[in-house]
Amino acid sequence: MKIEVFFSPVGIDELGMRGRNVIIIDVLRATTTICTALSNGAREVIPTADIENATKISSNLSSDSRLLGGERQGKKIDGFDLGNSPAEYSPEKVRNKSIIFTTTNGAGAIHKCRYASTALVASFVNVSAIVETIVEIGGTWTILCSGRQGAFSVEDATCAGMIISKVKEVSEVDTEDAGLTTLILYKNYKKSILGMMKKSQHGQYLVSIGFEEDLKFCSNVDGVPVVPVVSGLVVRIKQPGSSAQSITGQTP
Amino acid sequence: MKIEVFFSPVGIDELGMRGRNVIIIDVLRATTTICTALSNGAREVIPTADIENATKISSNLSSDSRLLGGERQGKKIDGFDLGNSPAEYSPEKVRNKSIIFTTTNGAGAIHKCRYASTALVASFVNVSAIVETIVEIGGTWTILCSGRQGAFSVEDATCAGMIISKVKEVSEVDTEDAGLTTLILYKNYKKSILGMMKKSQHGQYLVSIGFEEDLKFCSNVDGVPVVPVVSGLVVRIKQPGSSAQSITGQTP
Repeated sequence: MKIEVFFSPVGIDELGMRGRNVIIIDVLRATTTICTALSNGAREVIPTADIENATKISSNLSSDSRLLGGERQGKKIDGFDLGNSPAEYSPEKVRNKSIIFTTTNGAGAIHKCRYASTALVASFVNVSAIVETIVEIGGTWTILCSGRQGAFSVEDATCAGMIISKVKEVSEVDTEDAGLTTLILYKNYKKSILGMMKKSQHGQYLVSIGFEEDLKFCSNVDGVPVVPVVSGLVVRIKQPGSSAQSITGQTP
Repeated sequence: MKIEVFFSPVGIDELGMRGRNVIIIDVLRATTTICTALSNGAREVIPTADIENATKISSNLSSDSRLLGGERQGKKIDGFDLGNSPAEYSPEKVRNKSIIFTTTNGAGAIHKCRYASTALVASFVNVSAIVETIVEIGGTWTILCSGRQGAFSVEDATCAGMIISKVKEVSEVDTEDAGLTTLILYKNYKKSILGMMKKSQHGQYLVSIGFEEDLKFCSNVDGVPVVPVVSGLVVRIKQPGSSAQSITGQTP
């Protein structure tokens, strides 16, 4: 397999991911939260880059079937139902709901992948499920780290390294400078993913605004073993037992 | 001291570095070549992002005082005097010359720093000279890696890590996710900088087009101990013995 890594979506235009097989990572916290919401029974997540658009989409859905979720500066948006803490997305709250979701980095990165051939949402909580799926599909993959306001974030890169490392256990992997760097990061931090998060810029910020518990949730490797698939403008869960091939070519 | 690292100039606009203290790195090979040219007696290097502009600047200088240097796809540009191999920039060729210099990544990155408060050109060949200078000046520094066609390059990031590591030997350093990652890279590769370069994407490309010797030159730590200073549109050498403070505020 061939795996390429981008450390942020900066410089990638709307069609930059067209035709690619992509894995989008925003460990703290968007992709962890999406995994959790879908695992807990949400019908779908609809990521969008801005609040205005989120509100517009929301107004087109019946109020008992949708929730507005997301953050700005890490905090719940005024008037929204949920913030961006994965633990908020409990079965009681999200079952059968469409969640319109806007966050600073991850939701926009996912939106940029809407023309990808296959686009999956990954985090530490579903690493093994993602690895199993991409190994089954094979071919060439791009890992798109969401980063932090256009800059590099160590938790996303380390998660990319964990994915590549696990693929390497079962397959040859051809990668490049960025991919090799994520492997070195993962080797360095694998004994304490939570410790790495606590040292990271965004981890420190989240602790400073009272979200330390989220770091524990987000560092729970394989705690939420689902495969969220971007299909056009929505993210839905790959049904257990369905073939990996059935999720390819989901985007236009 | 505070040191921030950018892995590529993508997303940085013309004024993005204004007012900052910046170190620009393009190990393979632009910043190594600039160090070499200036150390070997070139009067100045004039970096420019495109060939057309290089030719225009050249036509305004008398033909016995200037040389055109640079590369596209790693190779010497048609009609130019020199390519981008540092060893080409011998004292016999470059003494007292103005070198108009255009390369794919590094020259453009330097050009983007023309409104920085202080901008220095670094590579493995002058790491210690750069570290000594920035420690003397103190304050906050940005390391701008040139990368490769907008993407991450491991040799630039490792060089950034070597700079931060050496600053840490004599001063506290406050850095962020990218800076911490460069330290991990440097720790991983410090026993064989040449080995790292041979594994890097651009190193492999240069070997494939016949420039293996350049990798040896570019990995010769402290082999060319000069401090090239960007001053407006030109790069000149800091004179030995002049104070570090004298080179600050060189750009408009």
